[in-house]
Amino acid sequence: MRILVYGLGALGKVFAGFLKKAGHEVYAIGRKKFVQPIREKGLKITGIWGSHHIDLKEVYEKIDELPVKDFDLVVLTVKSYDTERALEDLKKVNFKYLLLAQNGYGNYEKATSVFGKEKVILSRVIFGAQILEPGHVKVTVIADDVVIGNPDGAIKEEVLKKLAQTLREAGIPTRYEPTVYQYLWDKILYNSALNPLGALLEVNYGTLAKLEETRQLMDRIIEEIFAVAQAKGIKLFYKNAEEYKKHFYEKLIPPTAEHYPSMLQDIKAGKPTEIEALNGAIVRLGREVGIPTPVNEVITQLVKAKEKLNLKNNSTHPKGLVNALGKNLIFQQ
Amino acid sequence: MRILVYGLGALGKVFAGFLKKAGHEVYAIGRKKFVQPIREKGLKITGIWGSHHIDLKEVYEKIDELPVKDFDLVVLTVKSYDTERALEDLKKVNFKYLLLAQNGYGNYEKATSVFGKEKVILSRVIFGAQILEPGHVKVTVIADDVVIGNPDGAIKEEVLKKLAQTLREAGIPTRYEPTVYQYLWDKILYNSALNPLGALLEVNYGTLAKLEETRQLMDRIIEEIFAVAQAKGIKLFYKNAEEYKKHFYEKLIPPTAEHYPSMLQDIKAGKPTEIEALNGAIVRLGREVGIPTPVNEVITQLVKAKEKLNLKNNSTHPKGLVNALGKNLIFQQ
Repeated sequence: MRILVYGLGALGKVFAGFLKKAGHEVYAIGRKKFVQPIREKGLKITGIWGSHHIDLKEVYEKIDELPVKDFDLVVLTVKSYDTERALEDLKKVNFKYLLLAQNGYGNYEKATSVFGKEKVILSRVIFGAQILEPGHVKVTVIADDVVIGNPDGAIKEEVLKKLAQTLREAGIPTRYEPTVYQYLWDKILYNSALNPLGALLEVNYGTLAKLEETRQLMDRIIEEIFAVAQAKGIKLFYKNAEEYKKHFYEKLIPPTAEHYPSMLQDIKAGKPTEIEALNGAIVRLGREVGIPTPVNEVITQLVKAKEKLNLKNNSTHPKGLVNALGKNLIFQQ
Repeated sequence: MRILVYGLGALGKVFAGFLKKAGHEVYAIGRKKFVQPIREKGLKITGIWGSHHIDLKEVYEKIDELPVKDFDLVVLTVKSYDTERALEDLKKVNFKYLLLAQNGYGNYEKATSVFGKEKVILSRVIFGAQILEPGHVKVTVIADDVVIGNPDGAIKEEVLKKLAQTLREAGIPTRYEPTVYQYLWDKILYNSALNPLGALLEVNYGTLAKLEETRQLMDRIIEEIFAVAQAKGIKLFYKNAEEYKKHFYEKLIPPTAEHYPSMLQDIKAGKPTEIEALNGAIVRLGREVGIPTPVNEVITQLVKAKEKLNLKNNSTHPKGLVNALGKNLIFQQ
């Protein structure tokens, strides 16, 4: 297959590297800092199984630089705040299928509005990967298969099963599921409850579940999501918020109690977050159907404020002052 | 006058010191760490006018240790989360008047429910003082007179005017105002809008007013307070939230743009905050009259969580881990 991987973050590197290694004709688009090192030294992928070195020359900064314009598959791996820009870019090439390997709500909706339901494959990716150097990525955890599918049933099952097999054979555990949209929303639920509070208070998931106040806030975030999903006709795996909360506190949190949200890592690194595709999306969907989402709304605003305050090259935030807390600051009662 | 100052924080030290210096018979109750140093070395008060050293021997840890039980005036200076305990203690002594030198909503209501309206004098204290050593306090800023009065008009004006004069003569600028309750609420408004957001995001007032997200949150906090105040029949100085917001952003914030809330200082020092007498009180009052206060509610929960996570000797918070952020933590998307 001739494949274009759009986005060379941790996930993009894993897709590009494994697909190339499996013998596919792989092209990739990424940011400047990744392009040159990968062209020169290739891509290194480390995992529990050892390390692979993959020679990947067809890596570009801009889509116009691509030597070919026709692809069997495009894998979109950019963060959700970059989706619209990427889709605009992808109008410049031709492809049979676009596989979205992203998080949060809104990517599938945007992609189908541009390219039609028949071309867009949604996935829920749940493995963790971390960039060690510009050309070196480490796969840290594979919690479950990548799940792929088409929420509208607009793509034949054979095509989806075949793609799952292709990815599996390349070393990316993947399965086809007709209920992929529910899988995606399951991750939205989990991320929306934990990520912003963990990022705001700078604590791990176990602590959020332990403290009465944060537990109440997570309960309300979850309840608001269930109310919005019901009004929007979005199916979730759980009958109601109560059923999910039981599963969430009893089964999901204990094994990840020591985990911190990547949203906190992003904020601390001066990067934007995906809050608008998580709690921010709940607020927008809630408005569409007249369901109030006050907790998701306040939490979204606070994360956006914290994000802005930490964005690189941001001059609003008196970091020096904050770090020197208690030294020469003026405190007022 | 024979005066008991209950609470030897920064404010208590200023009241006790100046009243003693003016020749009154002053007794004081304070925490262990303050009692011994003051007994041994006296009290030092520094301000723009220079330094005063005051000999203050009658300082005790427990109310039962007091050598006398009858007072003309008790000045209560404890933080609002200690009010109930202090009032219980004060049942053990006799006094003509109880002057509340505290912040937030609920202190006057609690004090009158125990001792009656005829004995309780409310104040709005707006000067800043800072403890440099256990026996040394610095007055940093006097924004306006201390305002005293009785919200229920249950104490004769002559008494209140006389007390204001006594305090003024002792070096504490004070005036009597029949609208003292409005003065108190004016400070509640200002503090509720700025303190919790500044404490959560660790930024100064100017930054809160500059960022779109925090500005929207402050707008909503203010709007909720106006709605609750109106439903409760609490008079404010401003016709409506719009009028206050204009004053708040144009007049109040600019001169204090560099200020950080003392609530942040308290949290960082591992101390409890007065959130329950500010935004937390708005939530409780809102519930009484059926006015929703979602923004104040979420903000209160977050501050309480942050407070708990930072309380001294708290083992829930993996401080080491948080400080080592990005080192060996497990981040999850």
